[in-house]
Amino acid sequence: MNFASDNTSGAHPAILEGLTAANEGHLHSYGDDPITEGVQAKIREIFEAPEARVYLVATGTAANALSCAVLTDPWGAIFCHRNAHIEEDECGAPEFYTNGSKLVLVDGPDAKMDADALARTIAHTGRGGIHNVQRGMVSITNSTEAGAVYSPEDVKALTDVARRYHLPVHMDGARFANALVAAGCTPAEMTWKAGVDVLSFGGTKNGCMAVEAVVIFDPKRAWEFELRRKRGGHLFSKHRFLAAQMQAYLADDLWLKTARHANEMARKLSEGIGQIEGAKLIHPTQANAVFAALPRGAHKRANAAGAYYYLWPFDQSLEGPEDELLAARLVCSWATTPEEIDAFLSHLA
Amino acid sequence: MNFASDNTSGAHPAILEGLTAANEGHLHSYGDDPITEGVQAKIREIFEAPEARVYLVATGTAANALSCAVLTDPWGAIFCHRNAHIEEDECGAPEFYTNGSKLVLVDGPDAKMDADALARTIAHTGRGGIHNVQRGMVSITNSTEAGAVYSPEDVKALTDVARRYHLPVHMDGARFANALVAAGCTPAEMTWKAGVDVLSFGGTKNGCMAVEAVVIFDPKRAWEFELRRKRGGHLFSKHRFLAAQMQAYLADDLWLKTARHANEMARKLSEGIGQIEGAKLIHPTQANAVFAALPRGAHKRANAAGAYYYLWPFDQSLEGPEDELLAARLVCSWATTPEEIDAFLSHLA
Amino acid sequence: MNFASDNTSGAHPAILEGLTAANEGHLHSYGDDPITEGVQAKIREIFEAPEARVYLVATGTAANALSCAVLTDPWGAIFCHRNAHIEEDECGAPEFYTNGSKLVLVDGPDAKMDADALARTIAHTGRGGIHNVQRGMVSITNSTEAGAVYSPEDVKALTDVARRYHLPVHMDGARFANALVAAGCTPAEMTWKAGVDVLSFGGTKNGCMAVEAVVIFDPKRAWEFELRRKRGGHLFSKHRFLAAQMQAYLADDLWLKTARHANEMARKLSEGIGQIEGAKLIHPTQANAVFAALPRGAHKRANAAGAYYYLWPFDQSLEGPEDELLAARLVCSWATTPEEIDAFLSHLA
Amino acid sequence: MNFASDNTSGAHPAILEGLTAANEGHLHSYGDDPITEGVQAKIREIFEAPEARVYLVATGTAANALSCAVLTDPWGAIFCHRNAHIEEDECGAPEFYTNGSKLVLVDGPDAKMDADALARTIAHTGRGGIHNVQRGMVSITNSTEAGAVYSPEDVKALTDVARRYHLPVHMDGARFANALVAAGCTPAEMTWKAGVDVLSFGGTKNGCMAVEAVVIFDPKRAWEFELRRKRGGHLFSKHRFLAAQMQAYLADDLWLKTARHANEMARKLSEGIGQIEGAKLIHPTQANAVFAALPRGAHKRANAAGAYYYLWPFDQSLEGPEDELLAARLVCSWATTPEEIDAFLSHLA
Repeated sequence: MNFASDNTSGAHPAILEGLTAANEGHLHSYGDDPITEGVQAKIREIFEAPEARVYLVATGTAANALSCAVLTDPWGAIFCHRNAHIEEDECGAPEFYTNGSKLVLVDGPDAKMDADALARTIAHTGRGGIHNVQRGMVSITNSTEAGAVYSPEDVKALTDVARRYHLPVHMDGARFANALVAAGCTPAEMTWKAGVDVLSFGGTKNGCMAVEAVVIFDPKRAWEFELRRKRGGHLFSKHRFLAAQMQAYLADDLWLKTARHANEMARKLSEGIGQIEGAKLIHPTQANAVFAALPRGAHKRANAAGAYYYLWPFDQSLEGPEDELLAARLVCSWATTPEEIDAFLSHLA
Repeated sequence: MNFASDNTSGAHPAILEGLTAANEGHLHSYGDDPITEGVQAKIREIFEAPEARVYLVATGTAANALSCAVLTDPWGAIFCHRNAHIEEDECGAPEFYTNGSKLVLVDGPDAKMDADALARTIAHTGRGGIHNVQRGMVSITNSTEAGAVYSPEDVKALTDVARRYHLPVHMDGARFANALVAAGCTPAEMTWKAGVDVLSFGGTKNGCMAVEAVVIFDPKRAWEFELRRKRGGHLFSKHRFLAAQMQAYLADDLWLKTARHANEMARKLSEGIGQIEGAKLIHPTQANAVFAALPRGAHKRANAAGAYYYLWPFDQSLEGPEDELLAARLVCSWATTPEEIDAFLSHLA
Repeated sequence: MNFASDNTSGAHPAILEGLTAANEGHLHSYGDDPITEGVQAKIREIFEAPEARVYLVATGTAANALSCAVLTDPWGAIFCHRNAHIEEDECGAPEFYTNGSKLVLVDGPDAKMDADALARTIAHTGRGGIHNVQRGMVSITNSTEAGAVYSPEDVKALTDVARRYHLPVHMDGARFANALVAAGCTPAEMTWKAGVDVLSFGGTKNGCMAVEAVVIFDPKRAWEFELRRKRGGHLFSKHRFLAAQMQAYLADDLWLKTARHANEMARKLSEGIGQIEGAKLIHPTQANAVFAALPRGAHKRANAAGAYYYLWPFDQSLEGPEDELLAARLVCSWATTPEEIDAFLSHLA
Repeated sequence: MNFASDNTSGAHPAILEGLTAANEGHLHSYGDDPITEGVQAKIREIFEAPEARVYLVATGTAANALSCAVLTDPWGAIFCHRNAHIEEDECGAPEFYTNGSKLVLVDGPDAKMDADALARTIAHTGRGGIHNVQRGMVSITNSTEAGAVYSPEDVKALTDVARRYHLPVHMDGARFANALVAAGCTPAEMTWKAGVDVLSFGGTKNGCMAVEAVVIFDPKRAWEFELRRKRGGHLFSKHRFLAAQMQAYLADDLWLKTARHANEMARKLSEGIGQIEGAKLIHPTQANAVFAALPRGAHKRANAAGAYYYLWPFDQSLEGPEDELLAARLVCSWATTPEEIDAFLSHLA
């Protein structure tokens, strides 16, 4: 009963099999190998983007911060939601990689930027010319930190605003697969067809060990990305081991299957919570995370039974009245089982 | 017959077994797991350094650049050999992570800094007070980029100079194991007992997939390292997979065995080349790399037979007189076999 | 009738006389001269701070950004008001000099941080440990960008919050003199006695040509400041010309007289506006700036008569209904005359 | 008898008169004023460069570091002479402003880069692709730190090498006027006609108080320069006071007259030293600095008589044998008088 995050699970067995298969013999290092080339071709195919350039790194923070650094100058604002991962959970990595750009925060429910709020925020930024931080780029997290999903239309509404100001758009897709299967669209529809320039395409949270692809739809930014990746220490020498994970992840639609499973588990969990006396959802369950307020007594019972997850915000206390509502974040992954959920619900109830 | 680098081989089977074993069930992320804790304890034990702090990252460039960033201010010079990896092969990663420190280059044969040259260079730097880059730190690569090895006494001679100027000392040990078994000393003797403050302890080149440990002998620098690692995007979420590699690497002295093997293969190769008409070594073979000048005809035959390695410098041409000497770098690894070497030597001869 | 800013005026004649007097003969460069030493001693005396270190730079942005860089690590948050100059008007200079720290914004009326809001914001920041930007420092602008003044008690209320979290405190005193004479306290009471660690002590806006002093009350941060100043290109070679301005500025309390004059002019202007039909103040007039909403017709008349100032926000239009209220910022300086104000008021009325 | 530097003198009286004249009334701030516009037009005229963009800053380090930052990416090497001011005397300002580029050092006598050495150094840099720092830009100091002068042909020889690699070229002209009058050519011939893209055009050392112009011959780099200047804290609010200095400096060819005078004084000094028993020049005297080796006894006499200058390197000692030769740097400026020189020579002899 571990719902702390989708990164507390291990890797899907197919990923480890992929690594083992890739381990034979000598291969050129630094990405000049057939496994890497195959993965790049496969991602271009999946995204219907024959011109796209694809790079692999091992962490989501690296994927996001490097992406930002190629999309904005140091004096450019990065417009993102107030609760975006790049704002709240990366210890200033975007500021470090961009050499000091400013994240300018946009509001909206369920950690989704509202298009009007984005437009107002951009309009308000950089009006004073040389004295101000300039308008730099937009970053969209899909699925969001609150478990919500932008549809392609939602994305388009934001990128339309960005285009009005000639701003490039990044999508933080650490949970891209969860968003995609929830939206029921194609990878292309969710990204470049909706106006996204660079995608952090997550693998780690959805069943890999440690790999994310950065998909750069406009190839003219690619060489700068390569230099920044190397300079950031993110170019693997035995690159095959990044590529092999991604290869296995994409083979036979594993990535879609694991995401579908995680989303289904979240829906099951969400529905179960909906039937608990006094419980209520605080965000809609659209991907693989459930945000729900539950009576403290329920939390105490679940904790006592060994369930592991975060109160949200996490610095709340289990000490206090039994019937007071405390919010929690409950994340499902490829490894979550229906049995775990049933057991968990039985403790809550 | 691949001698291009010790990163063209795959991972030792024990490493993959370690990964598979570590894949069971849920574990806390970001290093708060028992495998990581075990590895940290094991490294403290191996280095006889109960106070040391140990951090894992996936690349040598990350290990080195983060180490430099905790050891010097942005205005501090990093004294290193002219051919150090941090100077020549990291695309400016140390400059990026330190926010602009200057690498001040020291001479010496076989890519080993000469202690007197180091002393002169440090003395010459920062004499002009506020106008100059200040003296920051010393970085020693062991084994060196030319395949030579510093003994503990050699290291001590350099750190004595550093101490005279109150400068901390980093050791780039991407090939630490190769240096260690060559020197025949203990890990402690090679590092903190010889005056090293922070070690990049390499795993990747010596049989791992992608893992390096940073060993910080003075724990007061540790928290800053943690922040810089996160901010650099180098903190793995599924951290167990870095730790599991290192666990397997250290178990049963695997790291020493693979290094001994690689060094022996290099010695065999070196001796074989010594018997080739017209060939000569251009650096002594002390670790796992051989630097030798060979007649162009020999290179052409080896190439034709499928041998793969770099001319050194690599931009020389195979076109030209058969008997002209061209230098080459030939690197052995845990995966190099005596048969490969015999076959290679037979083509050269 | 120029109320655009206190930097549209020239320098007070005494400043130019000071420059001329300082121009004789050879002097050591880079601040090693008796004029600089005299200024440093004088500022220590004025601030009753015999241990303080004093440095001169030519711009307020340099003073602020360098101060921030010595007070916080790159991963530290700078807590400041949402409308602080360092947030809105320096094109990201603090982010550049700190190598990417994040400005975390605090609310409060009249561009004054509310102490409770500061406490909440600090408490909310950095709770997630390594994943978050850490708590770095607090920066207080006095007088504020809305023309309000923090009393020593107001400052103390903020620094008490900062101390609770062991955070150092910077004061942006580009208009320090205006705040001081408004508060009717001593320089020491407004700064170190109220918990301020580093002060940007403005000269330019209050009658100098281009000089600001950075007063570092804790001398252990001084050498780092010197290095950052040089490295930022802010160390003047003919340093006497910064010092001579500051010498003249401080002599015979010129700085207090010019500030008192500017504040009195603002009060006169504010009172005059208060008597205009339909006008109203949008911030209290406590220092040398007046923020007032006036009927568009009044603005049009003043503009037609040659008055120069900014609508606030500046991107409003003079086109539209005559009686609609438009806000304006009107700044007085040492050079503002009562006659100008009378003339201006007569056009508005 | 002060020959320590051309920055130990004050400002030429005309500069202070210019400041005083500029002090009347209100003017727009931040460079949007007629004095600034006049100076920009005048510099375009002097350089026969109607498209050039001209920006003023207060220090040579700011001019150089900002210029480098617009000419190279962070991962680009700056090729410059081993003794260039940007390498030796700016505390790493270029590294700071560029966010970590590497200065790659070129040899040549008299602190002049040799074109062949430059070509070899560039060819050697960045050969390893992504692993290496890339080729970024070339920076030429004229006159050099050793008092030598590049002719337009010398400059052309270097920029031809740069062009072969598509590298932009910066000229550090802190002593541009001295070089120009020595070479006897036009400003255009020394700069853009010889292949220079951006010039730091010095005023401070040649008679101003504190002003340097950055002349950007290719206007497409201008907006980035403006943003970097602001972000670096180098945009003056009362900008007229930078412009007024430059206006007076350029009026009636004052800048050429002061440079000619300084060069003549250096020649007189150089010739006088040439007649001293045992003395010898260690660099040719081509601009306003003399580098000469003199018997220690001569130095002791001059010091005793109150002469002030630097031994070169400065950390030599006056203690020791009277007849041992010690080198010195002796710099003349607009303020140096023939009488000073005669007196100095009489003490040496």
